[in-house]
Amino acid sequence: MTNSTQIPPLDPDALRNVVWSALEEDGAFRDVTTQALVPPDQRGRGVFLAKDAGVIAGLPVAATAFAAIDEEITLRFSIDEGDWVEPGQVFGELEGPLGSILSGERVALNFLQRLSGTATATRALVDAVAGLPVRVVDTRKTTPGLRTLERYAVRVGGGANHRYNLADGILIKDNHIAAGRARGLDIPQIIAAARAGAPHTLRVEIEVTTYAEAEEALAGAADVVLLDNMNVEEMARAARLLKGHALTEASGGVTIANIRAVAEAGVDIISSGSITHSAKALDISLDIENA
Amino acid sequence: MTNSTQIPPLDPDALRNVVWSALEEDGAFRDVTTQALVPPDQRGRGVFLAKDAGVIAGLPVAATAFAAIDEEITLRFSIDEGDWVEPGQVFGELEGPLGSILSGERVALNFLQRLSGTATATRALVDAVAGLPVRVVDTRKTTPGLRTLERYAVRVGGGANHRYNLADGILIKDNHIAAGRARGLDIPQIIAAARAGAPHTLRVEIEVTTYAEAEEALAGAADVVLLDNMNVEEMARAARLLKGHALTEASGGVTIANIRAVAEAGVDIISSGSITHSAKALDISLDIENA
Amino acid sequence: MTNSTQIPPLDPDALRNVVWSALEEDGAFRDVTTQALVPPDQRGRGVFLAKDAGVIAGLPVAATAFAAIDEEITLRFSIDEGDWVEPGQVFGELEGPLGSILSGERVALNFLQRLSGTATATRALVDAVAGLPVRVVDTRKTTPGLRTLERYAVRVGGGANHRYNLADGILIKDNHIAAGRARGLDIPQIIAAARAGAPHTLRVEIEVTTYAEAEEALAGAADVVLLDNMNVEEMARAARLLKGHALTEASGGVTIANIRAVAEAGVDIISSGSITHSAKALDISLDIENA
Amino acid sequence: MTNSTQIPPLDPDALRNVVWSALEEDGAFRDVTTQALVPPDQRGRGVFLAKDAGVIAGLPVAATAFAAIDEEITLRFSIDEGDWVEPGQVFGELEGPLGSILSGERVALNFLQRLSGTATATRALVDAVAGLPVRVVDTRKTTPGLRTLERYAVRVGGGANHRYNLADGILIKDNHIAAGRARGLDIPQIIAAARAGAPHTLRVEIEVTTYAEAEEALAGAADVVLLDNMNVEEMARAARLLKGHALTEASGGVTIANIRAVAEAGVDIISSGSITHSAKALDISLDIENA
Amino acid sequence: MTNSTQIPPLDPDALRNVVWSALEEDGAFRDVTTQALVPPDQRGRGVFLAKDAGVIAGLPVAATAFAAIDEEITLRFSIDEGDWVEPGQVFGELEGPLGSILSGERVALNFLQRLSGTATATRALVDAVAGLPVRVVDTRKTTPGLRTLERYAVRVGGGANHRYNLADGILIKDNHIAAGRARGLDIPQIIAAARAGAPHTLRVEIEVTTYAEAEEALAGAADVVLLDNMNVEEMARAARLLKGHALTEASGGVTIANIRAVAEAGVDIISSGSITHSAKALDISLDIENA
Amino acid sequence: MTNSTQIPPLDPDALRNVVWSALEEDGAFRDVTTQALVPPDQRGRGVFLAKDAGVIAGLPVAATAFAAIDEEITLRFSIDEGDWVEPGQVFGELEGPLGSILSGERVALNFLQRLSGTATATRALVDAVAGLPVRVVDTRKTTPGLRTLERYAVRVGGGANHRYNLADGILIKDNHIAAGRARGLDIPQIIAAARAGAPHTLRVEIEVTTYAEAEEALAGAADVVLLDNMNVEEMARAARLLKGHALTEASGGVTIANIRAVAEAGVDIISSGSITHSAKALDISLDIENA
Repeated sequence: MTNSTQIPPLDPDALRNVVWSALEEDGAFRDVTTQALVPPDQRGRGVFLAKDAGVIAGLPVAATAFAAIDEEITLRFSIDEGDWVEPGQVFGELEGPLGSILSGERVALNFLQRLSGTATATRALVDAVAGLPVRVVDTRKTTPGLRTLERYAVRVGGGANHRYNLADGILIKDNHIAAGRARGLDIPQIIAAARAGAPHTLRVEIEVTTYAEAEEALAGAADVVLLDNMNVEEMARAARLLKGHALTEASGGVTIANIRAVAEAGVDIISSGSITHSAKALDISLDIENA
Repeated sequence: MTNSTQIPPLDPDALRNVVWSALEEDGAFRDVTTQALVPPDQRGRGVFLAKDAGVIAGLPVAATAFAAIDEEITLRFSIDEGDWVEPGQVFGELEGPLGSILSGERVALNFLQRLSGTATATRALVDAVAGLPVRVVDTRKTTPGLRTLERYAVRVGGGANHRYNLADGILIKDNHIAAGRARGLDIPQIIAAARAGAPHTLRVEIEVTTYAEAEEALAGAADVVLLDNMNVEEMARAARLLKGHALTEASGGVTIANIRAVAEAGVDIISSGSITHSAKALDISLDIENA
Repeated sequence: MTNSTQIPPLDPDALRNVVWSALEEDGAFRDVTTQALVPPDQRGRGVFLAKDAGVIAGLPVAATAFAAIDEEITLRFSIDEGDWVEPGQVFGELEGPLGSILSGERVALNFLQRLSGTATATRALVDAVAGLPVRVVDTRKTTPGLRTLERYAVRVGGGANHRYNLADGILIKDNHIAAGRARGLDIPQIIAAARAGAPHTLRVEIEVTTYAEAEEALAGAADVVLLDNMNVEEMARAARLLKGHALTEASGGVTIANIRAVAEAGVDIISSGSITHSAKALDISLDIENA
Repeated sequence: MTNSTQIPPLDPDALRNVVWSALEEDGAFRDVTTQALVPPDQRGRGVFLAKDAGVIAGLPVAATAFAAIDEEITLRFSIDEGDWVEPGQVFGELEGPLGSILSGERVALNFLQRLSGTATATRALVDAVAGLPVRVVDTRKTTPGLRTLERYAVRVGGGANHRYNLADGILIKDNHIAAGRARGLDIPQIIAAARAGAPHTLRVEIEVTTYAEAEEALAGAADVVLLDNMNVEEMARAARLLKGHALTEASGGVTIANIRAVAEAGVDIISSGSITHSAKALDISLDIENA
Repeated sequence: MTNSTQIPPLDPDALRNVVWSALEEDGAFRDVTTQALVPPDQRGRGVFLAKDAGVIAGLPVAATAFAAIDEEITLRFSIDEGDWVEPGQVFGELEGPLGSILSGERVALNFLQRLSGTATATRALVDAVAGLPVRVVDTRKTTPGLRTLERYAVRVGGGANHRYNLADGILIKDNHIAAGRARGLDIPQIIAAARAGAPHTLRVEIEVTTYAEAEEALAGAADVVLLDNMNVEEMARAARLLKGHALTEASGGVTIANIRAVAEAGVDIISSGSITHSAKALDISLDIENA
Repeated sequence: MTNSTQIPPLDPDALRNVVWSALEEDGAFRDVTTQALVPPDQRGRGVFLAKDAGVIAGLPVAATAFAAIDEEITLRFSIDEGDWVEPGQVFGELEGPLGSILSGERVALNFLQRLSGTATATRALVDAVAGLPVRVVDTRKTTPGLRTLERYAVRVGGGANHRYNLADGILIKDNHIAAGRARGLDIPQIIAAARAGAPHTLRVEIEVTTYAEAEEALAGAADVVLLDNMNVEEMARAARLLKGHALTEASGGVTIANIRAVAEAGVDIISSGSITHSAKALDISLDIENA
């Protein structure tokens, strides 16, 4: 399944809310140290410095944070969102009232490091399947409160997005199947019930764990079949079965080591929770000097 | 510096807000799949199952999430907050309307996995310095929006907390020193200025990077001296200098591999950003069955 | 296309917010007349009386309003949500502190009358296509702030829901097609672009206005084709073309007079804006007496 | 009773909140279709086109919606708020980033159509009583959440406003009278109690249903007497009785067919719930083309 | 003008919001001292002790604060809202988790002392005019954010309320008159314009500063005339002029020393800003002991 | 203890929120009188006039209020924040749409009068201890909702701030000591427990009421000792004991009459609740004329 390479815009209202909340959380406007030590007219400048190699994501978030702190801060990035940086690379600079820069630094970096971490982890998976017709997507295993930003970072890293939440996509999981079976329904009947109860704009995706279940999903005319925690051979067999009838998504235990083999099994989509729930923050610093 | 082992309560208002926001973010009350497939009167039960070894943190958060989804869900944990679990260990169970359980599962797990990850990473550092009079603390490198919860997880893991934010602690960093020097002040004068401008209830902590700066901090009667990115020998020398005059905090590049050596250098406090910004989520699942 | 008859639950958080906002808007807790005239210990009872014939929707909303005003009010409905009432029919009663009943009456009725109006209008359309395999759905032409409630009322009236908003469904409208053509794309390419840029959980729906465009939509393998403002003959021709390849949705100018003919044209879905944007409120009163 | 013809300004804070909420509700910043299909640099223009005849109300609301979506959109209306339009009449145009225009269109139209519907219904009643000294006013039967906007639309349509809510006007209704009688009070005593308990800046209005009650209201020196559901003869008799002593308001069952007769009965004020609770949305479209 | 002696209920939603905000402002759930020193199972009890003489107002506010902190706290007051206390008098007691009591104490007392201060100041004025047919009312000179509570305290102190805010009462002040005169209007015309532009449920009150202006107000049939900063003789003359035609309100420079003379001048209403903007907090303490 | 004379900036987000809330509370955008009487194009100007002598605080708050009401209002102050004014002194002027000026006047003045009252009361205490090495500070006895602004006013008046709230400073009060004693702890053990349980960035302050307790506090190495309600001789004795070992704070019953004696007793800090809980509003008016 091919994938758009365009990075979508961030919801400006969501961006503003999350950044202001973070500034309030960090007491950025009540910075006792800076208020005691830095007079309002002292100016400073700083450079953004990568200390790890990776993909930068979150430049608009950092820009929003500094703009919220003080409109007099000017900020220029010498790279584009999604560019790769090497350790030691300077990728932007800012100038303005020194006190404001110091008070906003931590919040800006907390976002930038975390989102760059997710983008970098995503890029690693995407690069590992280069040339194959497969889409790498996120899951709902995101940080509470940051789903919009983290999904954005996945896009910046070259991945695509799964459903946003429980309300905008149908995914019949093992427990839903079990619930249906307890009421005497088989998989095709469960698929039909989901289709009857949901908006017609949504595809019906169902999670299966065996080849036999994949056959049932096919019988029920599922639109998408999630192959959960199957080994590569099973996955390939199921993918062949479903090719042309349903999209297939591989999920569970995907790592940088095995993702190419999974993709070669012929699935259309590979989802990864670790790119959001366990990505290592990219080490970035802001080196400041007095103007 | 010794440390209280008591786990403080979570701010109930903050807890409620963060959990409700997460449920809204995940569309938990508009779960199209579950609403189409699970009738309101179908009941289920599930068990919480650890799939990694680690420290569990966030039981009250998970409980709040399920209570918010549906007051009819009952939930019992067989361990206490902060207990260690082994892979395969069942540590709790819940029972109630199956649809509600399915709709709340992901949010509850997202919190539980993340907070347990931070608690586990903290415990590793704390255990590595067992027997030494040193306090392991967090930093402001937390997830935006989750600082209260992550600092709580650090306490659950046996660590202590640094200042909450810029408003409730003084920390004169390298850039503040540079700003002062640009105005002709030396370190003792900078410390005096911070003391003059801040509430008398706050200690004055200052970051130094060399032994010479530590001597200046001593001359300025700093209450706490943060030894930033020093090697262990320098740190030990500075700690000896300051012993009895100021608390000392080691910061920068602390890992499980070197923390004991750092502690043996004689510092009172060791701070770590990685326990909040890069902790790996602890793998936990909720295994559900029909009642 | 068949449709589930199950009424989904209302999001309790959304319900609470919208009801509290309405009570604040109406000054229900600062009712100067009632506070001056009705002592706290005076009790009253009242009955809900239908003055028009129609479908009742919003019983849980009315119940939430009275519970918010005063937990001592008890309320019992003698019908179920979605039942039909005749003029003069009493369908519920409440008892409690008289002042609280008077202060909450208007807000409760404002919701109940409006939602019942939408449910009644929906039921009329649904009944008109009885026996035909077609789904009657709403549009995004809802009252600002009340989309969740109005979509719920559509379900209560026997209809189904279209996408909730711009974020959870793809609908390529005439302007999107024109935008694509301006960039040199034909309809199959536009469909492919939408598919590439959106989550794989969403179907791709496209609006066409001619049979020729319907052929292009077929060539692009659209999942759903909206036949906009076509006459019944064109619609039937397009529906035959697409049968088995895509769902078809009829939209534009649907009335109680023509809906059966539209359905007989063979479309799967018929959408109506008037059931939300121009439904007449159902006349309902609360007849109160002193206890 | 004469009436000001000046249209009051809309509360800017209320306007902003209601518009932003509606945009969030519609997912206007997360429009998956537009984001996939319309590049940020593609521009468009559109015209506002009336498809029904009526009074336009809500131009500032539509302007606020498009400004919130994208500050680069420019918008010009060729009519004034409150002007009459004919079917086919173009009354404004806008130009800017095409994607932003498409994402904001529905919310802007939802407000504009609804408010124009209320203004049009109001104008019909006002025109029907042209030349008579009577004020046409709204009621509290407004859409929850939209009272401020709907009352504004009534003003735009040439009507006036009744009290905003329960807190800023006294209206002793039948149930209040019954409550007082149950405690042994007659109508003059009830009026006195209301006067004693409320701010002196409020008139005391009382609802009566018979001529005898109107006599009691006069004895109690009510400031305003609401004549509820009386026939025209009774109303005229009561109006003559009260002339010079109290204002009179007619309420209940007022339609375009009977309003002139009601006005000729000599009342000062006529209130109508249908102009807010059951106004038909005015059909307006935004015709868009690529720039 | 007589006045109701009934104390109206507090808006529960407003009460909850203002109390929760105050608890958050005071960090009541993050009380580092108490969390470090008082274990969760240690219990305490305390008594409310008056240290000044005065009227107690705010018992429900204090109760709400302690209930918000910890539902296990039980609280009993031995007096009623509005009762007079003497220095040294115990008027209530509470029992519960000691830590919760300590964390909530300050917020509860801040409200109780301030509201009791306003009630006490009001009572002093009310007592000074005992036996005279005059109503003592507040103004809009209240503490930002606390208007609802302070107006309530005025009622508890035996006073009455003026309009709540600019939206729910008409008061034509000197600057409005000057604005009208600049446009060529005289006072009767200004009164007519206000009447034309405002809901018919509001009286028209106008501020005058001379007897001549009072005559003009009478000519314009003002409903209420505010006599601003007149001496007692002028006031008496104006009151005689207006008796039977309009209510009269004395305002400006009213003190405990001169209020009886002002009342004897024959006005209906006397307003005082000092009872809200400059009332001295009543000294109240909570004496706590371990259970 | 010396004190910075620099006035810190106000948190812009907090400022905006508190001002907007106050404007909404006062109905400033729904001012029925002004909307009926002042056309949008009528302009006015006004001057700020002091009617009492005192310190002006809150100029940025007043400016924010008028800017929020109408961006066209221009405003110039001829004094600086914190300057002293005499009765009759004009200290600023504004010009703009007259209606907007009238609608915003009361809220602007309510803030300005109250904050100036606190600044003036603070200045009186500060001046009374001129030349002595003592810091005058506020307490937590602030107006609910206005702590940030009132603490700011204390700074404007030349005072300093105590801890912001329970979360950012440790203060072991008599009840905490009693709680500890009930568990068998003495004062040094209580101090140690607080130190163990709190961030290392906070000083430990303890309240004592006798010389003997002061000795215990010294033994426990408290950082700050609050001498509560001691007479001046005791205070002097305790201050001598603790000099060089801990800061000392005098609290309780401090007045303009006795503060110099208290300061001469040798304490470092004097705290006063009355400057926030009982400060008299400074009388300020806005004299407006038509432009």
